[in-house]
Amino acid sequence: MYSIVDLHSITQPQDPQVLRDNIMDMAASLLACGIDPTRSILFQQSQVSEHAELSWILGCLTSMPRLRHLPQWKMKSKQKNEGSVGLYTYPVLQAADILLYKSTHVPVGEDQIQHLELAQDLARIFNNQYGEFFPEPRALLSGTRKVKSLRDPSSKMSKSDPQRFSAVFLTDTPDDIALKIRRAVTDFTSEVTYEPDTRPGVSNLVSMHAAVSGQTIEGVIRLAEGMDTGQYKNMVAEAIIKKLQPIRLEIQRLRADQGYLESLLAQGAEKARSLAAPVMKEVRKLLGFY
Amino acid sequence: MYSIVDLHSITQPQDPQVLRDNIMDMAASLLACGIDPTRSILFQQSQVSEHAELSWILGCLTSMPRLRHLPQWKMKSKQKNEGSVGLYTYPVLQAADILLYKSTHVPVGEDQIQHLELAQDLARIFNNQYGEFFPEPRALLSGTRKVKSLRDPSSKMSKSDPQRFSAVFLTDTPDDIALKIRRAVTDFTSEVTYEPDTRPGVSNLVSMHAAVSGQTIEGVIRLAEGMDTGQYKNMVAEAIIKKLQPIRLEIQRLRADQGYLESLLAQGAEKARSLAAPVMKEVRKLLGFY
Repeated sequence: MYSIVDLHSITQPQDPQVLRDNIMDMAASLLACGIDPTRSILFQQSQVSEHAELSWILGCLTSMPRLRHLPQWKMKSKQKNEGSVGLYTYPVLQAADILLYKSTHVPVGEDQIQHLELAQDLARIFNNQYGEFFPEPRALLSGTRKVKSLRDPSSKMSKSDPQRFSAVFLTDTPDDIALKIRRAVTDFTSEVTYEPDTRPGVSNLVSMHAAVSGQTIEGVIRLAEGMDTGQYKNMVAEAIIKKLQPIRLEIQRLRADQGYLESLLAQGAEKARSLAAPVMKEVRKLLGFY
Repeated sequence: MYSIVDLHSITQPQDPQVLRDNIMDMAASLLACGIDPTRSILFQQSQVSEHAELSWILGCLTSMPRLRHLPQWKMKSKQKNEGSVGLYTYPVLQAADILLYKSTHVPVGEDQIQHLELAQDLARIFNNQYGEFFPEPRALLSGTRKVKSLRDPSSKMSKSDPQRFSAVFLTDTPDDIALKIRRAVTDFTSEVTYEPDTRPGVSNLVSMHAAVSGQTIEGVIRLAEGMDTGQYKNMVAEAIIKKLQPIRLEIQRLRADQGYLESLLAQGAEKARSLAAPVMKEVRKLLGFY
């Protein structure tokens, strides 16, 4: 079984050097977090033209209103008035990313469920029109609760959040992490409890703590017994640092070896192409293209 | 100098066999009308994946409102409520069709000028962002006035018009053509004059007559002197039949030789790919994709 990791696509212009660096950062991060290149195909989407090709075809099966209410567009197009066509049609490209490999399972966060539903719909619409071809991909939801912003625990933690101290990065130093957790918004109760609805700030810390230490929520709460939130923050910061420190060092090691990353991505693109090409060939045939 | 003829793309699902037939009909028609395959590259767009790829990238440079007022979307999305994403973004694909070959001149009808302007804008936007790369393509307008519907001379003649007798097809028999011209909407004045604004029906016949016979409007009017519109219609029908009959026979001949058409399109796709691939490679490099 292969899992296909789709590395980057653009929805608006970026500085080419920044884009190149981002791609390498993302590849290094995924590997450092445990994606095993002998079991996964790690590649850059833009190196496999079949993604854009299938995306065009799926766009012909998607109605305009279908995309209007998807969360990413609603969120980002509001931030900067009217977004680009690329941003609007991005969920169709995501559907192509999934269907192109006849994927059966897709690991997603809760916020991506609606996008996966579009892929499922498009598989159905395509199959109705041209005969059974694409399996309907199913969601693989992780058990971990969505991590929230450290500055505003009502919204999710996001690397593109412009607010400082709102997100922990894999490349943060131990000092960065300690500072961000210390500054995390909590409330005026000093006890450590897990009540996501009424106490989102401290509950977010508890849930991060459980995730990075591999413990249950209850286990973590027991550890925090008798601590006030200030003391607990030190404990959470330590747990996060313990988890992320080896990852950060591995990212640094990999980033220093650009040649290795490049050749890995090139091999990945080669393999991805060899899977995508026969599927697209079939698709073209079903559509009636010669 | 090559002119690139872009044969078909879909914006909504069609029966595969109908689509295949349409492609062959269109190829045969273009050749029968004089496209010379030794000077032109005749190919099917869907065989050259770079079109979809560049289209995705250009879509990231296009704002959503930019497409909302383009004529094709306004017209077709009204007909069937809300169209597909493919229909909406079709002008971006057209821009990719043009820019992918660094085209300098594009033969267009007046109704396509706004779409060409999008291609010009996108060339400019791309060049501003990534450095001078795409030439700004210029319109090659034909001198011939837009041909109007025979049933409603206020709208253009269109092969997708659902009204019978509104359009002359290249494959119409002489009897078909005679019947359609006889039924063409004119007015209550019997004299033949050229006054497109006040007498659109008869003026449309005059302008078609001039176009198919290679004469000027004045020359045609002189020929029609003393005729009433009924008599004149016979003359117009004859001129159209004389022009289209050899084309129809050539289309039939070509359609009977499916193997020739297929191999011509395959060669065309090969040539088109060899032009498109290095341009896309450059584009990817400029964007910062490896």
